[in-house]
Formats: sequence, structure tokens, C-alpha cells
Amino acid sequence: MAQNIYDHPDFFAGYSRLPRQVRGLDGAPEWPAVRAMLPELTGRHVADLGCGFGWASRWMREQGAASVLGLDLSRTMIARAKDDTADPAVEYRIADLETLTLPGTAFDLVYSALAFHYVADFERLIRTVHAALVPGGSLVFTIEHPIFMAAAHPRWNLDEDGRRTWPVNGYSIEGERRTDWFVKGVVKYHRTLGTTLNTLITAGFDLRRVEEFAPTPTQVECMPELAEELERPMMLLVSAHKPRRDYHAP
Amino acid sequence: MAQNIYDHPDFFAGYSRLPRQVRGLDGAPEWPAVRAMLPELTGRHVADLGCGFGWASRWMREQGAASVLGLDLSRTMIARAKDDTADPAVEYRIADLETLTLPGTAFDLVYSALAFHYVADFERLIRTVHAALVPGGSLVFTIEHPIFMAAAHPRWNLDEDGRRTWPVNGYSIEGERRTDWFVKGVVKYHRTLGTTLNTLITAGFDLRRVEEFAPTPTQVECMPELAEELERPMMLLVSAHKPRRDYHAP
Repeated sequence: MAQNIYDHPDFFAGYSRLPRQVRGLDGAPEWPAVRAMLPELTGRHVADLGCGFGWASRWMREQGAASVLGLDLSRTMIARAKDDTADPAVEYRIADLETLTLPGTAFDLVYSALAFHYVADFERLIRTVHAALVPGGSLVFTIEHPIFMAAAHPRWNLDEDGRRTWPVNGYSIEGERRTDWFVKGVVKYHRTLGTTLNTLITAGFDLRRVEEFAPTPTQVECMPELAEELERPMMLLVSAHKPRRDYHAP
Repeated sequence: MAQNIYDHPDFFAGYSRLPRQVRGLDGAPEWPAVRAMLPELTGRHVADLGCGFGWASRWMREQGAASVLGLDLSRTMIARAKDDTADPAVEYRIADLETLTLPGTAFDLVYSALAFHYVADFERLIRTVHAALVPGGSLVFTIEHPIFMAAAHPRWNLDEDGRRTWPVNGYSIEGERRTDWFVKGVVKYHRTLGTTLNTLITAGFDLRRVEEFAPTPTQVECMPELAEELERPMMLLVSAHKPRRDYHAP
């Protein structure tokens, strides 16, 4: 079973005060870029893997999704998501992405925000998602960028000009990374960008879009602290597509 | 016109002593990984963009390619490639990738090693390559990895444990980077990984494989200095495919 930091009281107390948890999608600077990757939602069946408080699940229903299934490991977050949602077409369940099962060809869109980097067996997860999508369906997800996650000591340094640099090492050495984030020893799994993308391709996905989130000039003007995101990407945004017909060219 | 460092005597003197220039493909540690990405070559028509001394052009002909067209900006290198090749099916020409024109649907494979990062207008180049490939054809190329190229001062630092780290900054700020490599002020063009991949997708390519070169344990055993390539990738290897039929799913 995956580590469940979200139900730890200290973690939860800090986490639930993050702008993106208090303000929802508008508190997440990458949201406009993510939204631009999403397919038309009207009448579609959606799964939201790692749904947290259900901000995106509710938003997708408001955009016209026929149904949204929000899944999360955290009892506390699923309880709060249920409390905040009064719509029978949005369902929340506790589920571990590490051992996830989903009904076959049941969803038009699988969406996931900042959850897949907690999963050790990414290949299994992606095969499960592929099988759960209808042909023509989409997978749109965000993860921590491997540039952000690779290093033993992932924090800003200064170069000889006094400019911030982000240290990268161990990039090709995949696997567990432990960091302190509200609590000590939060476990994440580093994978190279190549591994992430090749896992999708091997599972049968077509890659549609790969974005390394950088704030727009307007965003930096409104929130000057976002300028550091121009120096190194913290988030990777991927849009992939399950072809209507599996075809393998020679 | 692109900067032509290769015909500068000081540059050429240093460059032509690199293991990969003296020993050819076997002097390039990424070659086994690149070779694994190449399609079947027998009877195929190949273009080699930035062919240098023609090592790969000759190898592809030896593997059974029907014809190989090697293009390079450097007169010195094209002259040497011609001297080293006695096969009328391998042709070399001087050409600038910045203003490249190629015949339409003429090639089964376009190959390029460590040349595209010298090109300012990558989009134009990729559209040219796409048009020059037959449906079902492949583009396989290597470039300097954007992690390697982004920073203002791209050189190793030591972290608090005395371990090497590679400084990344300016990652999202694309464009010219000047470095000193045998001569001062070698001009390269930094693009994010997202831009590189999305340019291919937008031009109509399917991505087949994205590799961030890391040496194998055997390679590190034979050449211990390669261990640093595990800390941060220096090269990006991409295999893309021009679908037999352009189809745009909704």
C-alpha cells in the first residue's frame, strides 16, 4: 500500500492551508495550462485519480461531464469532498492508485493532478488507465517534474552571479525520494521524463502534448514569487490519447 | 545563416580529436541506444543531417540502405567525408539546416546526431523533415539535453555532501546560449523538452521513443568517467514516426 501522508494530522493541517486547497483550482498557477489540455467534457464520463477535496471533480461536472468518479487514498479528503459536493453524478471513493482497479472502457477522460509521483508501479497504473478508457479517450495528468525531484538536496543554490540555480543529480537513478513537506520522510518516486513518456507510448497511448509548466508574464506580475518557476520547471503536464484503433506501423 | 564553428581551424583541430571523431560511432557512448531506435535499413533511402565526417552515413549504407545523403554546413567535414567514402550510393553535400530544403517524400529515414541544437528555427526544420519523409518514415535524432544546456553557467558544482550537482536555471527561457567549446562563443539554441516534443507532434509526427542517455553499468565499468552522465542527462534521443495516414481524432 502506498504511504498515506494525507491522513497524518500535521500534514493535513499544513496541506489544507495551501492556496490550491483553500482557493481551489484558481489557487493553482498551472490550472490554465492544464485546462487548455482537457478535451470537451459535455456528456463525458470522467475519473479523477487523487481527487483530494474534489475541486477538479466538481469543476468537470459543472462543465457538463455526465459523471465524475473521484478517487483518493485519504479518508479525510474523501470525507471533505463528499461534504462539499451535493451532486449525485459526482461520486467519491477511497482508493490506492498503487493497487487501483477500474472498470474496462468506462471513461472518456482520466484526469490526475500531482498524484502519480506517489505511485511506485507507474507501468501498472498506466496499463490500468489505458484499459479503463474508451477508444478515443484521453489521459491528462500533472506530476512533479523530474528536474524538480531528482536531486538528493532539491533546493535553490546561488551561482557566481548570485542567480538562483536548481541542483540536479541522480537524474538517471530512478526510484524512491524522501523529502520533508509538512512532515518528515514524504515518499515520492522519481522517474526520468523518458520513462514517463515511454511508459505511456508502450501502453498504447499517443502523446498529444507535453508541457513543463512556466508562469506567463501576467502571472509573474501578479505573483512575483512565481518568477523562480522560470528557472526550473516544477511540474510536468501530459496529455495522451488512446487511439480509436490500435495500429502498429512497422 | 547558422554560425559555422566547424570550419574554424582551432575548433576543427580540437573537435577532430574527440573520441567520436577518431573512433567513429564506437567512440560515442550513446550509439548503442541510438542504434536500438533505428528502423530496418535494408533498401531504405536515408538523409543524415549534420553528417560530419560521414561515420553514420557510411554505417547505414553498410547496413543495407539503398542510398544515403549526408549534409553538413562544414566544407572541411564534407571534404573529409568524401575522401573517406568510396561508394556512389553515399552522397555528401554542403547544406545549412537553418535554410534546408529537401525533396518531398524522398526519404524513409531522416537521421541527425547532435546537430539540431545549432538550429534557431526548429519548427521550420521539422516541417521540412516531415515533408521529406515518406508516410511510414522515421525521424531519429539526438540533441544536447535541455537540462545540460539551460543554465547560464553549465558546469558541475558540489553539494553539501560533496556530491556533484548540475545547476539548472533559465530552463523556461528559450533561445541562444553561448558557450566556450574549443573556441569562444559557440552559439546553441536552448529549447525546453516540451517545445521539442510538441513541435514534432504539431508537425504531424507520432512520438515513438524519448531517451535521456544514461550509460549502462558495463559502460561505466569500462569508462568510469561516464558515471557523471548518471547525475544529469547530456543528450536527448528521440524517435518519431510519420503516420501512414494523417488522422486527427476529435
